[in-house]
Amino acid sequence: MKVSIVMGSTSDKDIVIKAVNTLKDFGVEVEWRIISAHRTPDEAHRFAKGLIDNGTEVVIACAGKAAHLAGVIAGITILPVIGLPIKSSTMDGLDSLLSVVQMPTGVPVATVAINGAENAAILAVQILAIKYPQLAEKLFAFKSSMAEKILREDRELGGAAN
Amino acid sequence: MKVSIVMGSTSDKDIVIKAVNTLKDFGVEVEWRIISAHRTPDEAHRFAKGLIDNGTEVVIACAGKAAHLAGVIAGITILPVIGLPIKSSTMDGLDSLLSVVQMPTGVPVATVAINGAENAAILAVQILAIKYPQLAEKLFAFKSSMAEKILREDRELGGAAN
Amino acid sequence: MKVSIVMGSTSDKDIVIKAVNTLKDFGVEVEWRIISAHRTPDEAHRFAKGLIDNGTEVVIACAGKAAHLAGVIAGITILPVIGLPIKSSTMDGLDSLLSVVQMPTGVPVATVAINGAENAAILAVQILAIKYPQLAEKLFAFKSSMAEKILREDRELGGAAN
Amino acid sequence: MKVSIVMGSTSDKDIVIKAVNTLKDFGVEVEWRIISAHRTPDEAHRFAKGLIDNGTEVVIACAGKAAHLAGVIAGITILPVIGLPIKSSTMDGLDSLLSVVQMPTGVPVATVAINGAENAAILAVQILAIKYPQLAEKLFAFKSSMAEKILREDRELGGAAN
Amino acid sequence: MKVSIVMGSTSDKDIVIKAVNTLKDFGVEVEWRIISAHRTPDEAHRFAKGLIDNGTEVVIACAGKAAHLAGVIAGITILPVIGLPIKSSTMDGLDSLLSVVQMPTGVPVATVAINGAENAAILAVQILAIKYPQLAEKLFAFKSSMAEKILREDRELGGAAN
Amino acid sequence: MKVSIVMGSTSDKDIVIKAVNTLKDFGVEVEWRIISAHRTPDEAHRFAKGLIDNGTEVVIACAGKAAHLAGVIAGITILPVIGLPIKSSTMDGLDSLLSVVQMPTGVPVATVAINGAENAAILAVQILAIKYPQLAEKLFAFKSSMAEKILREDRELGGAAN
Amino acid sequence: MKVSIVMGSTSDKDIVIKAVNTLKDFGVEVEWRIISAHRTPDEAHRFAKGLIDNGTEVVIACAGKAAHLAGVIAGITILPVIGLPIKSSTMDGLDSLLSVVQMPTGVPVATVAINGAENAAILAVQILAIKYPQLAEKLFAFKSSMAEKILREDRELGGAAN
Amino acid sequence: MKVSIVMGSTSDKDIVIKAVNTLKDFGVEVEWRIISAHRTPDEAHRFAKGLIDNGTEVVIACAGKAAHLAGVIAGITILPVIGLPIKSSTMDGLDSLLSVVQMPTGVPVATVAINGAENAAILAVQILAIKYPQLAEKLFAFKSSMAEKILREDRELGGAAN
Repeated sequence: MKVSIVMGSTSDKDIVIKAVNTLKDFGVEVEWRIISAHRTPDEAHRFAKGLIDNGTEVVIACAGKAAHLAGVIAGITILPVIGLPIKSSTMDGLDSLLSVVQMPTGVPVATVAINGAENAAILAVQILAIKYPQLAEKLFAFKSSMAEKILREDRELGGAAN
Repeated sequence: MKVSIVMGSTSDKDIVIKAVNTLKDFGVEVEWRIISAHRTPDEAHRFAKGLIDNGTEVVIACAGKAAHLAGVIAGITILPVIGLPIKSSTMDGLDSLLSVVQMPTGVPVATVAINGAENAAILAVQILAIKYPQLAEKLFAFKSSMAEKILREDRELGGAAN
Repeated sequence: MKVSIVMGSTSDKDIVIKAVNTLKDFGVEVEWRIISAHRTPDEAHRFAKGLIDNGTEVVIACAGKAAHLAGVIAGITILPVIGLPIKSSTMDGLDSLLSVVQMPTGVPVATVAINGAENAAILAVQILAIKYPQLAEKLFAFKSSMAEKILREDRELGGAAN
Repeated sequence: MKVSIVMGSTSDKDIVIKAVNTLKDFGVEVEWRIISAHRTPDEAHRFAKGLIDNGTEVVIACAGKAAHLAGVIAGITILPVIGLPIKSSTMDGLDSLLSVVQMPTGVPVATVAINGAENAAILAVQILAIKYPQLAEKLFAFKSSMAEKILREDRELGGAAN
Repeated sequence: MKVSIVMGSTSDKDIVIKAVNTLKDFGVEVEWRIISAHRTPDEAHRFAKGLIDNGTEVVIACAGKAAHLAGVIAGITILPVIGLPIKSSTMDGLDSLLSVVQMPTGVPVATVAINGAENAAILAVQILAIKYPQLAEKLFAFKSSMAEKILREDRELGGAAN
Repeated sequence: MKVSIVMGSTSDKDIVIKAVNTLKDFGVEVEWRIISAHRTPDEAHRFAKGLIDNGTEVVIACAGKAAHLAGVIAGITILPVIGLPIKSSTMDGLDSLLSVVQMPTGVPVATVAINGAENAAILAVQILAIKYPQLAEKLFAFKSSMAEKILREDRELGGAAN
Repeated sequence: MKVSIVMGSTSDKDIVIKAVNTLKDFGVEVEWRIISAHRTPDEAHRFAKGLIDNGTEVVIACAGKAAHLAGVIAGITILPVIGLPIKSSTMDGLDSLLSVVQMPTGVPVATVAINGAENAAILAVQILAIKYPQLAEKLFAFKSSMAEKILREDRELGGAAN
Repeated sequence: MKVSIVMGSTSDKDIVIKAVNTLKDFGVEVEWRIISAHRTPDEAHRFAKGLIDNGTEVVIACAGKAAHLAGVIAGITILPVIGLPIKSSTMDGLDSLLSVVQMPTGVPVATVAINGAENAAILAVQILAIKYPQLAEKLFAFKSSMAEKILREDRELGGAAN
């Protein structure tokens, strides 16, 4: 029950840490790596090829701008690859989003919202939960607690605004 | 080993059929449904709530324009929901893509490319393959045959263009 | 003469409060709620189904990113639903706008400008004014005072810039 | 119980006719006019100022490109103005949408989807239904028949795709 | 030799002042006004109709969001109308730009860059210079001084960067 | 009373001819040229420098894609330069529009709508009309005939749609 | 004096052939290959690593959608890589353009216009011409003939449009 | 072995300096100039025409908004021209990018990422390295040191996140 998170640059760490923490909350083993599709292409290949032997079951790849990391890994492994587009200093994340999501036929990347690190983690848990029933239980609890939080905030608001 | 595909309108059927066929090729049981988040909201709720009892393990939801179907189902089930944005007559699919992918924290949708029906199916297979080893074998074969096709086309091209 | 405002997250409250205050200025009863289409889908259904019995005549729904709340409610109630797209941290509000306005045939959402909370409220008053003549009087006065403010500012500017 | 539809150009008639027919189906009296905010500005003013005396209760204004017609009318009347952005030969309707929806504070336009003529009509009916209970009955029936159609299509699809 | 500048809101004044100052530098008489196409439509009509009698020869109209002011005035007067799109808090000025520039056939607006107040003024001077030769002289001098500034900066840079 | 129209490619001729015809209708002398900012830069410079001696009073420059022609000419002449962005086979004209309108401070281009050739011509006439009163008369007549056409179409529509 | 052109799919061949022909016209040896960054990642690595030994001096890589091919090759080789974004069935080429051009620091891709195959070839020739003086001669001739063509078309147009 | 960098405005200097420094690190002679396509068109022509005599082998041109500088120079010289689009205060750099990259057939500009000054420099070095083998050695070393940095950061991260 292991997820590998790979980011293209140390500058993505502040966003990735949210995915790490979410996965830990669900009791999932997490490996995180800094590997660049463009600066360390050999390492990216090695990493992608070794994922299954390494016990990884789901990959989360995050990168910004011309964000190729998720696609490169999805081209090599048969594991589900979750793509997390990062907003960079220009183009408001649209470049990352399109680079991650618009994959050609045969090589999907499961894309989540721009900067949506928690959602990348939850999606990984949902995928793992098909195999590991204990995660399904935790997901039900997570969904309930999210709902509880909204319902409590709603009660505190009081309904009548006048 | 069952995938439920739900589309918001019969007009999406021509695209969805590619996902159905791809899943059949992998030997995955497929249910397909026409359910609208906006026109049959009760049915959408019932569908989403019954997915697990129904034996579904992965959901593919496709819709166009303000494409809420994937998000609505992801709000109810804990199963992984794959969102397939459909290009409609205006906005070149950007409206669908953003409506599907930009989900709020806690409720991810695994989004694939605009009109990327085959990829939605392959992603579903990749997710199921974590649990069902026979699918992993088929994915390796699929990846090889994709590569073979490109390599063959490349050989036929002949290399030297002069 | 009652408007229900529903927001998808407490973080929308700073914007929503402007709609609440505008409605109060017109003497319209306001209920405000925090309900998420994705995190509390059952509550969203219950809310939408109970609106008419609850005395609500117009709904204002606001949400950001993949903003499905207005559409979900419009799928259930026959009341006019005003959609207020909220600008989030990426995509400058374009994702919210398209998710709210691009509704499929049969289920309209009356969309106002991104972050346009006052306008959502004024539109609700305009709708109610068809039935309640006293609101029409107030709208004429509101229009006059808006014009007066501009005319006064124009006079203060003095005309000749040299 | 009367709706005035105003379009900026005869070329919009093919789209507007769908709104006319939808309103007729609901038994609402419809006036339709060709008035241009830019080519017949005096007539646009006269039209907007005369709407209430003329018995109109809701306005639908449609135009393309720099689509000012809805905004111009909303600046004059206190009636709810529904804006229908029309897709023209360039920019895929984005210019019309932004020109219609991004109205300044104080002067809302209830915007529907690009080319969404039926939805403009249904929104008008929803607004009128607050005052005219017979329209509410018809809206419930309309919602049911929409749902019936989807449910029937879903049954015909047969569920199991294998 | 008179230019009328009209802005839709006092908040545009900080940008408009640059156009005023540029026109003064060229010795052109400037009138500036706050008139809203949507909040003071009657005044906008009166203003546009009185422009020629008032001695105005070129109009500059600036507004943000669904920026209709330039178009409304261009619909009434035969004078050249320069449209200055203002960037507002969302959409990075794209909404204003499209609302100003995408005018229908027969009613042009001479659009300049988003927030390009100086350029609106210089364009006005270029237009007036066709009639008033003394302005042509000043424009030649202005062009020379712009070039001189760049050439001086270039000389100060020194050429060789090593 | 002469307008020079310059296009970047013969493929623009079908659009430019509308501007030529409109100018002829107003009795304005027209010169039209094919000059490319990128393929015949020397000719472009010569053309721009000779405009005034040549009797030209207004320039219309049209080009597509990275549409630099209007800007290049505006950098050389002090005459008002009207920029006409042409829609090419990709990007729906947005590339042309932004390349033409977003000019730096000091060098304005009076931009009209994408493919808006008639409007480029009418704007040229409006500019010339400041100096030549007979054109003002024709513009009043043109505005009236446009209005007449709309009013006639409106009458033919008949008002009541039921 | 050899250029390698690599395309991600046979469907790109109709566009790529224009680059091949342009290079042949300049007497440059051309190799063309079909290699997919996602479907044949090993071959892509092998290809990129063997480029220099293979005698290639400039690479042209073209792909559509999430177009990673140019970036992947640029990550491996030190040769200049020209990226040619291809317009696919959605998003009008914007996804390809951003995926190709927005490369991270350290790994540039020399991007040309969407579908700009000839320009990719000419850029390759310009790069080679630094080393091979005979290509510089041909580029001067090419530039002259382009200019001649425009000048001839301009003469045929005749100048006076009246 | 000389690169000329030309920027349209002194305000670009903070970005351009990164290209200068990168080129110096590679031991390439750099000339940098401030020349505006629009404010100093004659100087731009002179500069472009003198490049080869001046010993320049590659040009880097950077500008923002309607960024014509690279295209103007590419229209005159046969040297490879690298275009560096600068993000300005509106439109998030999209205007610059499209103005630089979407060049017409026959006149390519080798475009790098928005604000990607280092990449413009590295691309220039890659181009020069075809002729100057010592630069190829340095590029290999540069690629290795980039990889080393990522690998070191990856090791410091430690792999296991739990």
